[in-house]
Amino acid sequence: MQNMDTHTRRQFIQAIMAAGAAAAVASTGASAWAQEKSTKPAPSHEELAAGLKHGSETILILIYPGFTELDAIAPRYALGGMMGAKVRLIAKTNKPLACESGFEITPQLGFDQCPENVDLLVVPGGMTGTLAAIEDAQTMDFVRQVGKRAKMVGSVCTGSLIIGAAGLLKGYEATCHWQALELLPLFGAKANKGRVVFDRDRVTGAGVTAGLDFGLELVRKYRGDFYAKGMQLLAQYDPQPPFAGGGNPATADPAVVALLEQMHKPFTDKAAGVIKKAVTI
Amino acid sequence: MQNMDTHTRRQFIQAIMAAGAAAAVASTGASAWAQEKSTKPAPSHEELAAGLKHGSETILILIYPGFTELDAIAPRYALGGMMGAKVRLIAKTNKPLACESGFEITPQLGFDQCPENVDLLVVPGGMTGTLAAIEDAQTMDFVRQVGKRAKMVGSVCTGSLIIGAAGLLKGYEATCHWQALELLPLFGAKANKGRVVFDRDRVTGAGVTAGLDFGLELVRKYRGDFYAKGMQLLAQYDPQPPFAGGGNPATADPAVVALLEQMHKPFTDKAAGVIKKAVTI
Repeated sequence: MQNMDTHTRRQFIQAIMAAGAAAAVASTGASAWAQEKSTKPAPSHEELAAGLKHGSETILILIYPGFTELDAIAPRYALGGMMGAKVRLIAKTNKPLACESGFEITPQLGFDQCPENVDLLVVPGGMTGTLAAIEDAQTMDFVRQVGKRAKMVGSVCTGSLIIGAAGLLKGYEATCHWQALELLPLFGAKANKGRVVFDRDRVTGAGVTAGLDFGLELVRKYRGDFYAKGMQLLAQYDPQPPFAGGGNPATADPAVVALLEQMHKPFTDKAAGVIKKAVTI
Repeated sequence: MQNMDTHTRRQFIQAIMAAGAAAAVASTGASAWAQEKSTKPAPSHEELAAGLKHGSETILILIYPGFTELDAIAPRYALGGMMGAKVRLIAKTNKPLACESGFEITPQLGFDQCPENVDLLVVPGGMTGTLAAIEDAQTMDFVRQVGKRAKMVGSVCTGSLIIGAAGLLKGYEATCHWQALELLPLFGAKANKGRVVFDRDRVTGAGVTAGLDFGLELVRKYRGDFYAKGMQLLAQYDPQPPFAGGGNPATADPAVVALLEQMHKPFTDKAAGVIKKAVTI
């Protein structure tokens, strides 16, 4: 069904991998652009391939009813560009489920199809859907079990509330959507205002759009700078937000900050109760 | 199915709308934060509501097999935050279809359920899936017909190849993924390297991640600065790409640029043929 797309996408990805090799030969003037100005011969396919950073990571992205789709789709784009990696959406069952915006996404795996060896488990956030996930024993058992055996566990936005409530952030520095950072100590995490926070075998991203930075930083971790540069350029990630500083509560318009905080309070209060209950289990 | 999520999301959105009103009262010291330092009373609900920018836009996002999901999901997030707007994913049928990464999304509407009055039609990009869409008569008829009656037509990434091949960019300035900009003159558009390009009743975004800037600029257009500031802060859009300048071919590592261009050439060549054939119809 997606053979052609996958095929052409691979050509792109191969370009990125080849770019990694090009870094090694750039100083010889043998990269594609440098060729025109150099008398040295272009590198052979074998020479390019020798510089490639290969991989075969197994990456699972948990989805659940009401998850914020951008939290999952942004890192999925970056991570999915890693040739050889298997990136799959996993949920309680492999039946379609409604995301926060109301449309349905079909997970590629149900919990009962979860691979044994997992390199990275990523958990996206949301609002009441996220709290419902924390209150769902089957979902939390999955996060706890797979989180323990995964080499790394990550989250975007309020996804850190899920992995935290599952006991996976105790003693770790972590981030979250700015409006929920205050909840992190409830499960023993130390709140960090960073956009992407790595602490040993945990990596957490801030609110929603931080999922893109999170994904690219993970590409860099798994495949190195050159591969990540390729993904950033392929994604044309040259952000131009409409309001300078408007995405950070420390620099945004104070009236906007105040009112988002004011209106968010019922969610934060409810979340605190849900988390307190979850951590006693 | 999504009642609770929608409910809590609304609280967020109401906060943003209230923030719009707060801007009007900020100078009186009556916003939530300013209250502490002011002797003036907090504004009543009625006073806040008076400053809100309401709307009821009908926004359709076309999806098709092989579309790049981030191209659609990023603007969907921003546009979906406009309270009162109806934002729907539409496709040939309302059956699940596979996006570029292989997982399935279920469109909310089929072509036969398309509303008569459309404020904005947004078309995401992709690679061979996008070319297949251009070769599909039914899809192109839909884009042509709805594009003609929509108040505005937009695209993200190579989505501009679809709306251009449908004749909707003739005489317009437009942008596209940087690797496909050279194709725009094939259907009479003038290539513009901007990240989000508005030209009369057309708005086009550059590659993939530009969809976020595109979405927020449209929120600003429909609902004004204050609402858009609220959405930017809710999205915590404070981007920190791993490589400064790495998302723009003019400033990225030349070896990465060269190799992406080299490897992308087969797609560009194929696309040129598909577009040339489409514009003669």
